[in-house]
Amino acid sequence: MAAVTEHLVVIGADAAGMSAASQARRRRGTDQLRITAFDRGGFSSYSACGIPYWVGGEVAERDALIARTPQEHRRRGIDLRLRTEVTEIDLDRRRVRSRDLDGGAEQWTGFDQLVVATGAVPRRPALPGFDAPGVHGVQTLDDGGALLATLERDCHRAVVVGGGYIGMEMAEAMVRRGLRVTVVHRSAEPMATLDPDMGRLVRTAMEGIGIEVVPGAEALAVRLGPDGRPRAVVSTAGEHPADVVVLGLGVRPRTGLAEAAGLPLGASGGLRTTPEQRVPGVDGIWAGGDCVEVLNTVSGQYQHIALGTHANKHGLVIGTNIGGGRASFPGVVGTAVSKVCSVEIARTGLREREADALGLDWEAAVIESTSRAGYYPGAAPMTVKMLAERGSGRLLGVQIVGREGAAKRVDVAAVALTAGLTVDQVVSLDLGYAPPFAPVWDPVQVAARRLAPLVR
Amino acid sequence: MAAVTEHLVVIGADAAGMSAASQARRRRGTDQLRITAFDRGGFSSYSACGIPYWVGGEVAERDALIARTPQEHRRRGIDLRLRTEVTEIDLDRRRVRSRDLDGGAEQWTGFDQLVVATGAVPRRPALPGFDAPGVHGVQTLDDGGALLATLERDCHRAVVVGGGYIGMEMAEAMVRRGLRVTVVHRSAEPMATLDPDMGRLVRTAMEGIGIEVVPGAEALAVRLGPDGRPRAVVSTAGEHPADVVVLGLGVRPRTGLAEAAGLPLGASGGLRTTPEQRVPGVDGIWAGGDCVEVLNTVSGQYQHIALGTHANKHGLVIGTNIGGGRASFPGVVGTAVSKVCSVEIARTGLREREADALGLDWEAAVIESTSRAGYYPGAAPMTVKMLAERGSGRLLGVQIVGREGAAKRVDVAAVALTAGLTVDQVVSLDLGYAPPFAPVWDPVQVAARRLAPLVR
Repeated sequence: MAAVTEHLVVIGADAAGMSAASQARRRRGTDQLRITAFDRGGFSSYSACGIPYWVGGEVAERDALIARTPQEHRRRGIDLRLRTEVTEIDLDRRRVRSRDLDGGAEQWTGFDQLVVATGAVPRRPALPGFDAPGVHGVQTLDDGGALLATLERDCHRAVVVGGGYIGMEMAEAMVRRGLRVTVVHRSAEPMATLDPDMGRLVRTAMEGIGIEVVPGAEALAVRLGPDGRPRAVVSTAGEHPADVVVLGLGVRPRTGLAEAAGLPLGASGGLRTTPEQRVPGVDGIWAGGDCVEVLNTVSGQYQHIALGTHANKHGLVIGTNIGGGRASFPGVVGTAVSKVCSVEIARTGLREREADALGLDWEAAVIESTSRAGYYPGAAPMTVKMLAERGSGRLLGVQIVGREGAAKRVDVAAVALTAGLTVDQVVSLDLGYAPPFAPVWDPVQVAARRLAPLVR
Repeated sequence: MAAVTEHLVVIGADAAGMSAASQARRRRGTDQLRITAFDRGGFSSYSACGIPYWVGGEVAERDALIARTPQEHRRRGIDLRLRTEVTEIDLDRRRVRSRDLDGGAEQWTGFDQLVVATGAVPRRPALPGFDAPGVHGVQTLDDGGALLATLERDCHRAVVVGGGYIGMEMAEAMVRRGLRVTVVHRSAEPMATLDPDMGRLVRTAMEGIGIEVVPGAEALAVRLGPDGRPRAVVSTAGEHPADVVVLGLGVRPRTGLAEAAGLPLGASGGLRTTPEQRVPGVDGIWAGGDCVEVLNTVSGQYQHIALGTHANKHGLVIGTNIGGGRASFPGVVGTAVSKVCSVEIARTGLREREADALGLDWEAAVIESTSRAGYYPGAAPMTVKMLAERGSGRLLGVQIVGREGAAKRVDVAAVALTAGLTVDQVVSLDLGYAPPFAPVWDPVQVAARRLAPLVR
């Protein structure tokens, strides 16, 4: 019996795309599956989340961020074409058109299975100066290299526009490089994925390492010098000197190609998929990573959340399914962790505004605890906020701001949210206890104890 | 309406007993509830789990281990009688007899509600020399003080008999104090609550800090000098010089008093209780902490597990119920964390032997991963072992040995076990990811990914 050779084409060679390709390859050899992967950038399978640490110098070498080199992929029989942009998906004839970004040559490539893993692009305001050189989004390894090239110029002052995860990580990175850094953001407190009372703790931490935080300010323009490069960011709060500007306004799914082909987008702007990561309506089309929307199982709503960990899971699911197995992605609960220097920040589930938007009747508790038994050396303070539904007692969300050992405690809440536990059940959880690792009541359980009587 | 004053008597003034008393007091004032608590020792509400760190010098002051002083309890209207041993429970007349250990006076005290929280005692072999001065169990703060008094003598060599948590923590403590330490234990590897392949990693860590580990050896006697104090421990593996001997053979529930009163014990030797922590059969009798057995919800069996975190939860449940509320303790999943110097050790659920004893059809996977993204500074190695049931894919247990950031990862598995998740569900969990905190697949999920195809 002759083996049937299918052709899998992957658009986008980072986490989702190459995880899909690798997993499909693990399950189906080169005699069964031909794989071609395109990427407009110069790299494959790298940690985009690691870019702030490369920029900040904690990670010395760009190549340390590369999990698997193009050569390694090619050795496994994946035809990887970098700096090659897919410019059209032709669903009728099941082919994609690509363009070599260096040579300019175009060609059509037929597919049986297609993985759309085109990622996301940093939001860039359509305002004066925001498209100038020296104004950097940080999403790809190429973006990181471009920012570093700017920083090697005569840069002393940086302005980050936006106070979310990427903005904060980039602010820290540039402080580490010795720049004076200002973060200009719209909300009352940075980290608007936290409630403002928890965001205030983050602001204090940022100011503690010398970052100037300008809250409640709308960016209006980047004022450019005669060389066409930034001199300042102009906002509703004034003018903020800048030799370099970093965009921290989040990202939007890169879906132009998919949209042009008629593939369905959700309200969040991301591609819609089934739990198997199929794009509904057309056979053999899959999508994953930063270009899709994900189901938040706590809210029951679809969201766009660009995170490498989701992208890798999507890739595993897609590759398993293409490889003849069965896998699905059940959704997320909205977990995210980050840090500003020694201050760790974590959230999962719903924050107040999200619970309100869903019309939930909720109650919250905020407690102070420590990472270890209070008497044990190195015990570090942490603040835990917990939300739960009144009546049912169902856990809705947790936010943590603290020092060493704070952030990953959110995982307990993430699993509890996945399982639909109540705060009473969280109080009873058999979590690891020994003085070097936790107080006798883990901080997450201290919050649950405080909250439990309020939601009965 | 006149308030009805009930009398609550508590036997044992540490975690379970005083948590029960404090919680009952929070819910019922002194006009509604009179509370008397007895303890044969000289302290109340202290962290027994902290004793090894006090002995080792990380915690400088004994009093740092005391969470709430006798004076604080008394100010809240709890009549706390230290160094007063309850010698009899008279269920018919609902009273307890107590004896002042210093003055010798005896008296009877009536009760409406009785909390039995008599704790546990270190197992001490009925072998020659094991009852000599200089042979120490470490369970109470008084025990810790007695050991320190011995260590302040001319001690150079210590032998720990038993290779479990307490034995290991005490071995580290005495290494810190500059003693040469030998650990003699019966099993093939130390930490028999882990599988031997994981215990071997612990042995390597112990040997790495200069502890001599003597596995597979049965202690036979403590050889005493002319002063009646230890000179050596004699085992089936030879003679091990010792100026001080520490018992690390685990503890047994202290239930003589309860047994004499006719209260029911389980097969584990611990007092039986309902989920409300009532002792079945007699109204108004409650029990919690190290003297009771707990339901392991993974195995469905009752076990004796002496851990401060369970004791505190029992106390909260008892105090809530006595205080007119409703609370219950659903059981445990067998979570425990510990460390030997920088090596962290964690386990939850079932190990191989336990899964076999239950007749389960299981499969295991062992993986190596890191605490942070591999490229991020400080990424520390860890080994994760995971067991799951074949067919159902149900998670059965997790063991972790690693460096910084390893132990508390077991909490994810503890919550997953509580919720009855499958390894496929563990693979999909939305855990916190950022390079300073985890690889893009958390180590627990790497293990789940490896195991999932083996149990389908």
